[in-house]
Amino acid sequence: MQMGRAESGSEIPLQRCADLVIISDTPKGRGVFATSVIPARTVIDVCPVLVLGLEENAKYIEKTQLYHYTYNWPIVDQHGKKKVTQAIILGLGSMFNHSTQEQNVGWERDLKGLVVTYRALRDIPAGEELCISYGARLTFKDADSVVALSEEDEIKQLIQIELD
Amino acid sequence: MQMGRAESGSEIPLQRCADLVIISDTPKGRGVFATSVIPARTVIDVCPVLVLGLEENAKYIEKTQLYHYTYNWPIVDQHGKKKVTQAIILGLGSMFNHSTQEQNVGWERDLKGLVVTYRALRDIPAGEELCISYGARLTFKDADSVVALSEEDEIKQLIQIELD
Repeated sequence: MQMGRAESGSEIPLQRCADLVIISDTPKGRGVFATSVIPARTVIDVCPVLVLGLEENAKYIEKTQLYHYTYNWPIVDQHGKKKVTQAIILGLGSMFNHSTQEQNVGWERDLKGLVVTYRALRDIPAGEELCISYGARLTFKDADSVVALSEEDEIKQLIQIELD
Repeated sequence: MQMGRAESGSEIPLQRCADLVIISDTPKGRGVFATSVIPARTVIDVCPVLVLGLEENAKYIEKTQLYHYTYNWPIVDQHGKKKVTQAIILGLGSMFNHSTQEQNVGWERDLKGLVVTYRALRDIPAGEELCISYGARLTFKDADSVVALSEEDEIKQLIQIELD
């Protein structure tokens, strides 16, 4: 599969945490839930990504519902300029609902390997929904944006890696 | 997440086989490989799907590279008519390369649960690439379509479930 170019030679384990289920009839629609305790820092899912072309994205994808599922993805264009396009996350990263207050999953982009890795930001009890913060790409009203996250959190960097 | 409607009450385990890696520099581009033996019938990956709207699909998605990654997905429209739209498979189902001859992974759609389950069609040795047959949706030249699959294969139904 050729969409997006991963750096040569990389061999990336496709880990997924056991004891996850998808439930269809939650107040937020489909959602991913833990069926047993997940310790902090556990890898939840490693998701390959499809990087969308800048032109195709602007011309087509941005006009569809699918756009709400894409992540910002930095690229360098043919003139060496830094641009931001969109990527589709092939895995649970596209299924986690949003929560600022109850966020328990953070993510880290691997631009060379073309994967996003999701990890538990804290111990997650059995039965809890796994939620991420959509951050700057939040495209709907953020009903529970109340608590400011601690800058001291040593794994805060996992939450969202900003563009430089 | 609301794209596509799963039937109420379903709770589906999101299994993924351990010992899988993604390798970027294969002759077919990115591909998924086994790092240890995977016995026949093992669940390889359970992938939630995003069902694309018929209109958005025809107007936008079919004009993009992304279309080559989508799967046929049967739906019933507002007039009760059976139609076929496209779905994006959120997981390894979108990363498996095609092989008719060396196909070792089959898939099964769950239309109500909005997931596709991938299983090993035979014992898969360590180091082998995981490949599916794209079937009727094959959009490029099928270089290795030589061997006819046995109609007797009891798990042939997993390969591709046709529309009725």
